[in-house]
Amino acid sequence: MRVNGTHYRTVWLENTTVKMIDQALLPHRFEILSLPNHTDTAKAIKDMRVRGAGAIGATAGYAMAQAALGAPGNNFFSYLQTAKKLIENTRPTAQNLFYATNRVFSSTKNLPPLQARKEAVKAAQAIADEDAENCRLIGMHGSKLIKNNSRIQTHCNAGWLAFVDYGSALSPIYQAAREGREVFVYVDETRPRGQGASLTAWELANENINHAIIADNAAGYLMQQGRVDMAIVGADRICANGDVANKIGTYEKALCANENGIPFYVAAPTTTIDFSCPSGKDVPIEERSGDEILYVSGLDSRGSISRVLIAPKGSNAVNLAFDLTPSRFITGIITEKGIFRPVEIKKLKKIKK
Amino acid sequence: MRVNGTHYRTVWLENTTVKMIDQALLPHRFEILSLPNHTDTAKAIKDMRVRGAGAIGATAGYAMAQAALGAPGNNFFSYLQTAKKLIENTRPTAQNLFYATNRVFSSTKNLPPLQARKEAVKAAQAIADEDAENCRLIGMHGSKLIKNNSRIQTHCNAGWLAFVDYGSALSPIYQAAREGREVFVYVDETRPRGQGASLTAWELANENINHAIIADNAAGYLMQQGRVDMAIVGADRICANGDVANKIGTYEKALCANENGIPFYVAAPTTTIDFSCPSGKDVPIEERSGDEILYVSGLDSRGSISRVLIAPKGSNAVNLAFDLTPSRFITGIITEKGIFRPVEIKKLKKIKK
Repeated sequence: MRVNGTHYRTVWLENTTVKMIDQALLPHRFEILSLPNHTDTAKAIKDMRVRGAGAIGATAGYAMAQAALGAPGNNFFSYLQTAKKLIENTRPTAQNLFYATNRVFSSTKNLPPLQARKEAVKAAQAIADEDAENCRLIGMHGSKLIKNNSRIQTHCNAGWLAFVDYGSALSPIYQAAREGREVFVYVDETRPRGQGASLTAWELANENINHAIIADNAAGYLMQQGRVDMAIVGADRICANGDVANKIGTYEKALCANENGIPFYVAAPTTTIDFSCPSGKDVPIEERSGDEILYVSGLDSRGSISRVLIAPKGSNAVNLAFDLTPSRFITGIITEKGIFRPVEIKKLKKIKK
Repeated sequence: MRVNGTHYRTVWLENTTVKMIDQALLPHRFEILSLPNHTDTAKAIKDMRVRGAGAIGATAGYAMAQAALGAPGNNFFSYLQTAKKLIENTRPTAQNLFYATNRVFSSTKNLPPLQARKEAVKAAQAIADEDAENCRLIGMHGSKLIKNNSRIQTHCNAGWLAFVDYGSALSPIYQAAREGREVFVYVDETRPRGQGASLTAWELANENINHAIIADNAAGYLMQQGRVDMAIVGADRICANGDVANKIGTYEKALCANENGIPFYVAAPTTTIDFSCPSGKDVPIEERSGDEILYVSGLDSRGSISRVLIAPKGSNAVNLAFDLTPSRFITGIITEKGIFRPVEIKKLKKIKK
C-alpha cells in the first residue's frame, strides 16, 4: 500500500536493523522506527508498536534473524534459544509469532554460526515475503464474495498494517475496489486500543474506500436494521476445529451476524491455523493492563498525542485482548489457498508445508 | 445516594431554579448546575448534562414547571405549548420525557395562570418524587433475583444518576448489598459517551460495590467463559410487545446473554412503557453527532477535562444513540410493580395510572 505516494511494507529488515511503521502514532503521525537488535524488536512487539497477526509474525522472524546475527559464535544456539523465549513471551496468543520463531530457529539447525546467520535472515525474509503474497491471494479469493455496492462490517485492523502488505480482512475489499466495485465499510472503533478508528480508517482513507466509523456497540443494531451485507474479520489463531481467536469483540459481532443471517467471514493466511490446538478452549487468552481500558490516547487540541482518563481515579479494569468465536458462527475462512468452511480446514493439514 | 457524605438527588427545583448534578463533568469533578429558566434546562437535557430516562423525565417536568412560572398571564397556554415543543425536541427517544411534559401540561388544563403555575410545580415535583419511589421499589423487587456472590453485567448507566434517586438497573444491586450480599459488577465503558466507565463506576465506587470496567467488546467473552451470572440493564422505552429501546449495545449484550443461557433483565419504572408503541420497529432512534465517536473526553495529564481525536482527521462516523432489543431476549422486566415477563407487561396497561 502507498503512504504519501510511496509504497511501504509494515516491517522490513535493512542490514541488521528492523524498520517498521510505528503504529502507536497512527493515524496522527507517520514515522518509521529503527530497531538495532532483537531485544528492541521484541519490545516493539510487546509495546504494540507493531500489531496484527502477520506483522507480528514477520517481526518475530526478523527479531530471530537479528538474534542470530548478534549471537556469539561460541554460544550460538543457547543465545538463540534464549532470544526465542524472549520473543515468544511478548504476545502469547499470536499463532504467527510461534510459527515465525520456530521456522527461523529450525533453519539454523545443525549449521555452523556463519551459515546459520545467513539461513536465519533468509528464513525471516521468506516469512515476510510469503505473508505479503498470501495476503495478496486472500484478496483475490475473497474479492469474489463481494458484490457491487456491498456494505461490509469489519472489526479491529486486519489490513496491511496487520500484515507485511495487503492485509487479510481488508485485502478482499481492496481487490474488489481495484476491480471497480463500490464498497462501503463499517469500521468499529475496537476498544480498548481503537485499532479500527485509528488504523483501519486510516488505511481505508488512503485507499479511497468509503467508510464510517461506528461504536463497537453499534454493529448489532446496524445488522438488525439490514444495513450490513457481510462481515469480514481477521484471526489471531484458528484452531483445528475451526474455532477462531481474534480481537476481543469478534465473538459479539459473529453472534450478531448469525442472529441476523449475515455471512460472517474470517480472512487469514493458513499460517494462522494451529492444528495442535484442537478447539478454542485450548487457546491462551492474553490479559493486558487495565490502563488500556481506563485511558484513551489520541490527538489533543495542541496537536500532541496524549491520553485522557475516562474513569474515576483508581478504578479497576479487566482487559482481555482476544476472544473465541465458535466455528458454527463462521460462514467461511478465506485463505491464500481458497475459501473453506470451518469444518473443512482440516483438509489443509495435508497440503500445509 | 450520598456524595462526600451528603445525600443528593440527581435533579431538583429550588424556587424557580432547576439544580442538577453536572454529569458531563463526572467522574472527574462534582459540580451542581443552576438553570434559571426552561430554555436553559432544555439545553442541559440536549447537551446531556443530565441523561438517563428518569432523570430526563424529571428534568423535563421541572422545565415545564419553569415554563409555567415564566409564562405571561395573557399568553399562558400558547407560551407553555411552545415551551413543551422545545423541551420535547431535546431527546426524541426518551419515553419519560414525553410522559413528564404531557403530565405537567395536563395539570394546568383549564386553570387560570396563577393556579396553573402552582399545579405545574406540584405535578413536576410529583413526577420526581414518584421516580425516586419507583426506583426504590425496583430495588426491593429486583434484589430478590440477586444471590450472594453474584457477578452481574450492566450496560451504560441506569443508576441513580439516570433517575432522581436509587436508579433502575443498579437499584436491585444496591439493595442486595444493603441486605448484606456480596455482588460484583462488570461495567462496560459504553462508548461513545462512556457512561459506564464514567458514571456507573463512579456510583459503584461511592456505594462500595466491587466492580471492574471492561471494554464494550468484552461482555460476550466473559459470558461465554461463565464469568457472568446475570445481566441487568435499563430502558429508554419499552414497547407494548415488550421490545426495549435502550443505549446502543444493549441488543448485543442481550444476544450474548441469550446465547450463553444467562438471565437478561431490564429494570425500569412503568412510566417507561409506551403502550402506544406496538413494537421496537416503531421507536424513533436518535442519531447524534459523529464527533461523539471521533473524540473521547477525559481527564488529561494537567488535570483538565479535555478531548482527544481517536481517528484520522476528517473521518466520517455514524452515531446511533440507541438500539432495539426484541422481547424474546429479555428474561424479565423489573418494575416498581413487580417483575414481569415481557409478554406480561400488557397487564400493566390496566393498572397504570
